[in-house]
Amino acid sequence: MLLRDRLRVPVGEPVDLSSYGTSDIPAGPTDKAAGAEAMTGLAPRLAELQERLYASSTAGDRRRVLLILQGMDTSGKGGTVKHVIGYLNPSGCRVRAFKAPTAEERGHHFLWRIKRSLPGPGEIGIFDRSHYEDVLVARVHELVPRHDLGPRYGQINRFEESLAEDGVTVVKVFLHLSYEEQRARLLARLDNPEKHWKFSSGDIEDRALWPAYQRAYETALERCSTDGAPWYVVPADRKWYRNWAISTLLLEHLEALDPRYPEGDFDVDECRRRLLAT
Amino acid sequence: MLLRDRLRVPVGEPVDLSSYGTSDIPAGPTDKAAGAEAMTGLAPRLAELQERLYASSTAGDRRRVLLILQGMDTSGKGGTVKHVIGYLNPSGCRVRAFKAPTAEERGHHFLWRIKRSLPGPGEIGIFDRSHYEDVLVARVHELVPRHDLGPRYGQINRFEESLAEDGVTVVKVFLHLSYEEQRARLLARLDNPEKHWKFSSGDIEDRALWPAYQRAYETALERCSTDGAPWYVVPADRKWYRNWAISTLLLEHLEALDPRYPEGDFDVDECRRRLLAT
Repeated sequence: MLLRDRLRVPVGEPVDLSSYGTSDIPAGPTDKAAGAEAMTGLAPRLAELQERLYASSTAGDRRRVLLILQGMDTSGKGGTVKHVIGYLNPSGCRVRAFKAPTAEERGHHFLWRIKRSLPGPGEIGIFDRSHYEDVLVARVHELVPRHDLGPRYGQINRFEESLAEDGVTVVKVFLHLSYEEQRARLLARLDNPEKHWKFSSGDIEDRALWPAYQRAYETALERCSTDGAPWYVVPADRKWYRNWAISTLLLEHLEALDPRYPEGDFDVDECRRRLLAT
Repeated sequence: MLLRDRLRVPVGEPVDLSSYGTSDIPAGPTDKAAGAEAMTGLAPRLAELQERLYASSTAGDRRRVLLILQGMDTSGKGGTVKHVIGYLNPSGCRVRAFKAPTAEERGHHFLWRIKRSLPGPGEIGIFDRSHYEDVLVARVHELVPRHDLGPRYGQINRFEESLAEDGVTVVKVFLHLSYEEQRARLLARLDNPEKHWKFSSGDIEDRALWPAYQRAYETALERCSTDGAPWYVVPADRKWYRNWAISTLLLEHLEALDPRYPEGDFDVDECRRRLLAT
């Protein structure tokens, strides 16, 4: 059974995040050492498939992958980029972290800045946060009136459907972290002066809103896990497991695309002869 | 002596590329195994300095680095991105490959597309080809009249000076490859069907223009090696040496910047107490 089939959020069903474990091991390596070994095995396959995807785009293949990472503070979005995307060739990756919208971005529809950041054909795009913030933080902090929020779920679904029609494989990952593990990670940041830049006292205040965030995630996962772009819930309390699981999800999607090196449009023997004459 | 002092193209002097070796080892490891070992030693230092640069930007530091890679076909621009930039955190890297300008780009000044692709504060930008194409291929293939070409060198110098004033450390690397090594690399591409997508028969025709390209590079290096943004000539016939040399150049520039982790603007003990109460 593929990992994607285990972690996929069923389409059209209510989502109860408390029924998903944050430190479960639904499949794959069962300890850190085995996780590291499995990663070493995955890396060359990921790298080769990425190269094939890119190579294929040079012959007109418009397909590409968009990995969307969402999760509470410290859930490991940045760590995933470092440890998973770090295995790939930076040439074919397009990483974009979305912060609070700028004044210019606020002057546009919430999908405007997203559409400007999409990966091109053959690329793997990685979003650290995404348009889902517009139904998460926007909902919890009541940044928009309810009657404006409601339609956003449908807008997101139609947008992602249009991406699929344009050859974009969207892989949406929710990094599922426990309340206790977040506390431990925030404490670890406080204990290390070299990590202070990642900390803000607002992170503590946001913990009071934890239940509201979980409800907002449940609503987003419930309304926006679709056949064309399902959500995946990755247990995120263990970093090594998170890395393995997301690498595997990425690998499975790339394998399903099965991109091929394009054939050359030249006569190899003739080119070799001409080249040897130079 | 720093490597940058050995590889720097002197400012205001004529450049004769034939006096620069393509397989020289001006400093550093002297064989492939030693090169690989040296890279393993460099990697964590590069990664840490990149993190410091990025962290510093979160406290308002606008400094950043722009690595410009230029060189003939097969000289290893793409390989450098894969093997050198691959050591860095993809979050803080912005890789951009410049191809022949699109119709939209041709409608603008040649620096327009460059300005839109610059790294933000704290980032390391990597250009695989750059605005120098507009005095290289543009010169060799006579894509613009001579009287339009001449002023471009000064425009480039003023542009790069303005970058320096905005906190951008520009590191310009010419990957110096021999005519014979290019032939060997093109033949290797022909011999491997998985590399055919990187080959075009135009690559052979361009070899006839090799001397003209060398002259165009000499002119660019001569006119645009400035105190604020000097050119570096990296011997590129040996891939392991090229990777070590460019990593070292990057490292030396980052070390000179000496970015620091910013201090937090919060009371650590108080935050710890509040956090433990959640």
